[in-house]
Amino acid sequence: MCEANAYLLKGDQQELIMESVDILRPEEGKVYIQDIFGGQRWVEGRIKEMNLVQHRILLTQD
Amino acid sequence: MCEANAYLLKGDQQELIMESVDILRPEEGKVYIQDIFGGQRWVEGRIKEMNLVQHRILLTQD
Repeated sequence: MCEANAYLLKGDQQELIMESVDILRPEEGKVYIQDIFGGQRWVEGRIKEMNLVQHRILLTQD
Repeated sequence: MCEANAYLLKGDQQELIMESVDILRPEEGKVYIQDIFGGQRWVEGRIKEMNLVQHRILLTQD
């Protein structure tokens, strides 16, 4: 499977906020994320970087 | 491999702009994308939606 883990940057820490992310949709000041099991979450912030080969999504609230 | 293809939404068409995308980084009004071979491109626009299981990244200039 090709899902990724989503992390939220807090200072110099990266907090894992969702595993196995399938769908990602930036909205006004938020990011909608959905995992492969249908779990959903809206996170305040924006996408900072994604690295698909490393299965990493990094969100930030900066 | 878990890279994805990037498409740019133009009207109701989706134009394939890069295959095998590895890294994706939204910047001011642009999106930086890099493929697994090191090819780089900056696309004017923003991320509309990503679907990792379907290996699809959709950008828009709306």
